[in-house]
Amino acid sequence: MSNKLKITFLGGVGEIGKNMTAFEFNDEIIVVDAGLTFPGEDLPGIDVVIPDFTYLINNKEKIKAIILTHGHEDHIGALPFVLQQIKAPIYGSRLTLALVENKMKEHPKVAYKAVTVKPKNVLKIGAFSVEFIKVSHSIAGALALCISTPAGNVVHTGDFKIDFEPIDGVMTDLQRFGELGKKGVNLLMCESTNVCRSGYSMSEKNVGRALEEIFKSHTENRIFVATFASNIHRLQQILNLAEKYGRKVAFTGRSMINITEVGSKIGEITYNKDILVDIDKIDKYADKELLIVTTGSQGEPLSALTRMATGEFKQIKIGENDLIVFSSSPIPGNEKSVYNVINALFQKGADVIYDELSEVHASGHACQEEIKTIHSLTKPKFFIPVHGEYRHLKMHKQLAMALGMEERNIVIATLGAQIEMTPNSIKKTGFVTAGQRLIDGYGIGDMDSNVLRERKQLSEDGICVVVMTINNISGEVVGEPFIITRGVVYQDEAEAFVQDTKNMIVASLKEQDLRGCDPAVIKNATRRNVSNFIYKRTKRRPMILTICLLD
Amino acid sequence: MSNKLKITFLGGVGEIGKNMTAFEFNDEIIVVDAGLTFPGEDLPGIDVVIPDFTYLINNKEKIKAIILTHGHEDHIGALPFVLQQIKAPIYGSRLTLALVENKMKEHPKVAYKAVTVKPKNVLKIGAFSVEFIKVSHSIAGALALCISTPAGNVVHTGDFKIDFEPIDGVMTDLQRFGELGKKGVNLLMCESTNVCRSGYSMSEKNVGRALEEIFKSHTENRIFVATFASNIHRLQQILNLAEKYGRKVAFTGRSMINITEVGSKIGEITYNKDILVDIDKIDKYADKELLIVTTGSQGEPLSALTRMATGEFKQIKIGENDLIVFSSSPIPGNEKSVYNVINALFQKGADVIYDELSEVHASGHACQEEIKTIHSLTKPKFFIPVHGEYRHLKMHKQLAMALGMEERNIVIATLGAQIEMTPNSIKKTGFVTAGQRLIDGYGIGDMDSNVLRERKQLSEDGICVVVMTINNISGEVVGEPFIITRGVVYQDEAEAFVQDTKNMIVASLKEQDLRGCDPAVIKNATRRNVSNFIYKRTKRRPMILTICLLD
Repeated sequence: MSNKLKITFLGGVGEIGKNMTAFEFNDEIIVVDAGLTFPGEDLPGIDVVIPDFTYLINNKEKIKAIILTHGHEDHIGALPFVLQQIKAPIYGSRLTLALVENKMKEHPKVAYKAVTVKPKNVLKIGAFSVEFIKVSHSIAGALALCISTPAGNVVHTGDFKIDFEPIDGVMTDLQRFGELGKKGVNLLMCESTNVCRSGYSMSEKNVGRALEEIFKSHTENRIFVATFASNIHRLQQILNLAEKYGRKVAFTGRSMINITEVGSKIGEITYNKDILVDIDKIDKYADKELLIVTTGSQGEPLSALTRMATGEFKQIKIGENDLIVFSSSPIPGNEKSVYNVINALFQKGADVIYDELSEVHASGHACQEEIKTIHSLTKPKFFIPVHGEYRHLKMHKQLAMALGMEERNIVIATLGAQIEMTPNSIKKTGFVTAGQRLIDGYGIGDMDSNVLRERKQLSEDGICVVVMTINNISGEVVGEPFIITRGVVYQDEAEAFVQDTKNMIVASLKEQDLRGCDPAVIKNATRRNVSNFIYKRTKRRPMILTICLLD
Repeated sequence: MSNKLKITFLGGVGEIGKNMTAFEFNDEIIVVDAGLTFPGEDLPGIDVVIPDFTYLINNKEKIKAIILTHGHEDHIGALPFVLQQIKAPIYGSRLTLALVENKMKEHPKVAYKAVTVKPKNVLKIGAFSVEFIKVSHSIAGALALCISTPAGNVVHTGDFKIDFEPIDGVMTDLQRFGELGKKGVNLLMCESTNVCRSGYSMSEKNVGRALEEIFKSHTENRIFVATFASNIHRLQQILNLAEKYGRKVAFTGRSMINITEVGSKIGEITYNKDILVDIDKIDKYADKELLIVTTGSQGEPLSALTRMATGEFKQIKIGENDLIVFSSSPIPGNEKSVYNVINALFQKGADVIYDELSEVHASGHACQEEIKTIHSLTKPKFFIPVHGEYRHLKMHKQLAMALGMEERNIVIATLGAQIEMTPNSIKKTGFVTAGQRLIDGYGIGDMDSNVLRERKQLSEDGICVVVMTINNISGEVVGEPFIITRGVVYQDEAEAFVQDTKNMIVASLKEQDLRGCDPAVIKNATRRNVSNFIYKRTKRRPMILTICLLD
C-alpha cells in the first residue's frame, strides 16, 4: 500500500469560480465540490461554464463520493453535468442538498443518491475519513473538511469567514481547527477570495443593525431589499425586521420564492407565514405596511428589480415614496449593470441605499486576520492556497510566509495540476486535462472553439453575404450578385451601399476576366474585393461570406 | 436686452464622460468642453461615443468659443468631429492645446484656431467674461471657470481636486474661489465623480512617497511603472525617482512617447534627456539600471503591458526579477481586464504592486470634504451638480442640502436639459435633441440603430444562411438548399448539422407543397422551420437569413 495522496485541481485555482478538486488515494477518489462559473461578456451566448472533468470520466470507477462544502453555484452548479457521467453518492449539509434537489428537478432523467451530513460527522470512505466542520459563510450549512488518509490530515476550509456574532448562533468551529492543528495537520487548503483585504470581514449582525436603522428612519416609505436569495441568514434578519416593524413581505424573483420555501421546509429559516403577501395583492396595503424582497441585486437584465427600474414590472411602479436597499455588493464585472439599475431607480424618484453608502452588506469570505487565525490554529506542515485568481494565491502564499512557513512547503496550483503528498513531502507531479467547458444550449464547447471566435467577429463588424450564380459551362457569373448585410451599415446608407457593392463586384469580375476559372478562385477574389471595398468605404471589417451557386 | 443665461447640457450629466455644455446669452454661445466616452462591451465594434451636438449645429452662427477645462479625452475627444461642423476658436491651457494639436494631426483637413489661456486670465467674448482659475487634477493645466454675464456669475469647477502638496507647487486657487464667493456667485456647477467618497482625496505627493519606497526596497529588480500617459505630474515624479536612483528610463506605448515629447517641449515636464534609453537598446543595461514606463494600466488588449504579460512584446520578456507597479486604478468596467493582466504577470514570476496593495495611485477627483470646501468658499445662490451618473448628482444634491442650500435652488440636469438662469431665478425650460453618437469607422450611428441590434444578436447565437433557388415558372425549389453557419455549431457537429437541416428543409417543402407560392411565402416558412429546427436541436436561436434566388 502506498502512502501517497494525489490531489488534482480541476477548478477554483487561478480563478474564482467552478470549484472542483479530486483527492485520490490508491484506487479511491473523492471529489470536493462541482461548481460552475457564470460567463462574462467575453463569452457571448454561453449559458454557464463548468470544469473540464475528463479526468474524472477517465477514472469514474474509482470515484466513491462527491462532497459539497456548501450550496453556492460555484460549488454545486456543475452537478447536473457531472452526475450524467459519474455515479457516486453526494454528501452535503441539509440546505446544500435541498438546493441540489431543487436544481436537479430540471434534470429529471439524472438519478443520484444524496446523503445529509452535519458538522462533527465523520464519514468513512475506503481509506478516507472525512470530518465536517462548521464554518460561517454567506449561505447557511457551509462546511469545512478534514480529509484524513495514511498520507496525513488535510484541512480544506471551503468558503468561510469568522463571524463572532453568527445569526444561527453557531460559530465557525475555531476550537476544532485548533484541536486538529494540535493533532497535526499535514496540509492546509484555505480559500483566498479576500486575502488582499486587511483586517476582519464585517459580522452579518452588523448588516442587521444597519438595516434596522433604515427601517426605523423610513417609517412612511415602501421599502425594497435586494439581496442574494441564497443568503438565508440575511433573509432571516430581513424577515425579522419586517415582523418587528409591522410590514407585510412580498417576495419577487423565482429564486427568492424557491429558496424561502426550501429553507422554511427544512427549518433553516423561520417566520410567521401570516406576514407573507402575494406580490399580486400588495395594492391592498399602504406603502408603509410593505416590504418587498427581491432578486436582481447584481443588475441582472431579466430580474424583478431591473424590470421595476425600467418600468416593465407589472405589479410595481417605482415612485418617490420608495426606498430601495441593495443588501449586496457588485460581483466584479457586474458594476456597470448594478449602477445602471441604481441610476434608473434614482431617476424614477426613489431613494437608493447601497453598500458604498452604508453597511448594508457583509462579505462571506475571510479577510487577512481571519485567514491568519485559521493558519495559526491549524499550523500545517504544507499549504496550498485555493479559491482565488493567481494574484490571490500568490498573496496568500506571501501571507503564509509572513506567518513563518517556508517557501518550499507552499505549492501554488494551477488548473489541471496534480500534486502528491506524503506525510513528509509535497510536490507537483504533472498536469491532467482541465479547463473550461462552455455550456451553450444543448452543446458543449471550449474556449478556442470556432463558434466563439465567429461570434466575436460577427459582433465587432457584422456580416456581409454575397451570393453569385456561376454558369457551369462558361464559368461566367449569371445575373447580378445578391447581397445582404447585418450589423454592417446604418439604415440611411444601406441601399446605396448594397448597390455600390454590387456594381463594384460586377465591374471587377469583368475587369479580371474570370471566365472559366474555378468557382473557388472567383469566390476568393470576390471576398477580397468586397472586404477591401467595405473597409475603404466604412473603415469596418465585417465577416464576408461569398456563396457561389452553379447554374 | 434680456438678462437670461440659457445653459444646455449636451453631455456629462447622468453619465461620466463626453462632457459638453453650452452657455447662451442672447445671440451668443460659448461651449465648455467637447469630450468623448469609450464604449463598453455593450457597444461592439464602436470606436468612440461622442455627444449628439445637433443643437450646436443648428445654432452654429451663434457659437463664439469652445473653452476646454483640461486635456482628458472626456473633455477634448469630440473636438475633431465638432470642429468639422463648427467654426469657433478654442481656448485652453498650454498642455490642453498641445494635446488637441496632437489629436488634430490625425485630421489634417480640419482647420481650427486655438488660443492659449492661463490661470487668472479673463476673456471677453461678447456679453461673456470668462475667468480661468487654477485647479489640481490628474492632468496638468486643468482650469475651473468663472463665467460672468448680466445674469450673474457662474463658477464651473471642471474636474478638480484640492491637493495641498501639488507637484507643480501651485495649488487649486482656493483664495480666488473665496473671493468670487464674497463678490457673489449666482450658480455653482461642481463635478461629482467622487461625491460618494468621504474624506479627502490623497495628495499626488503621497504617490511619489509610495513609489520612492518601492525604488528603495527593490534595488536589484527591473522596475516597470504603468500609468496614464496624460498624468504629467505622475510622470514627473517617476522620472525624478529614476534619476535619483540611477535608472535609465525606457518609454513604451505610443501615447506615453507622445505625451512626454509634447510635455517636455512646452516645459510641463522636465528631465535630463540623458536618462532616456530606447526600448530597443535596453539589453545593454542590467535590470537594476532600468525603469520601464508603460501604457496599459487599464489592461487594454493591444497595449505594451498587456503584450508583455502575454509574451507578445518583442523587446521584453517578463521574468522573476521584474517588479511591475500599476500606478493607476481600474476604471469601472475595466476590472476584469486589469486583473487578467496582473494575474498573467504574476504567473510569469514577476512581482506586481497595484492600488489594492499600496498607495501607488491617487484619484484626480475631489472627495466629499473637498467638494464641501468649494461649496463653502463660493456660497452660491443656485447649484447644479455635473460630471456624474444620476446617483452622483443626487448624492451631490443631498450634500449641498446638508450644507444648508434649499432644495428649490438646486437643479439636477439630464441629457439635453435646458436651464434658464437670471440673477434671481433658475428653472428647467425644456429639452433639446441630445444623446450618444456612435463613431463606427467612418460612419456614425445611434443607440437604437439596426447595426447595434444586429451585432448583438449575431454575437449571442451566430447566423445561419440558407440559399434556395426557386424555378420562376413552376415555383418549385430547384436542387438542394445551400446552408452555411457561423457561430452556431461546434466543429464536430457541423457536418451532420448542415445535412440534417438541408434534409429537414427539403422534406418540409415537399410536405407543405409550396409550388407556385410567392417566393416570400416560401422564404418565411423556411426561416420559421429552420429556426425551430435549430432551437429544438441546440437550444440556440441564431439569426436566420433565407435567400431565394429565382431561376
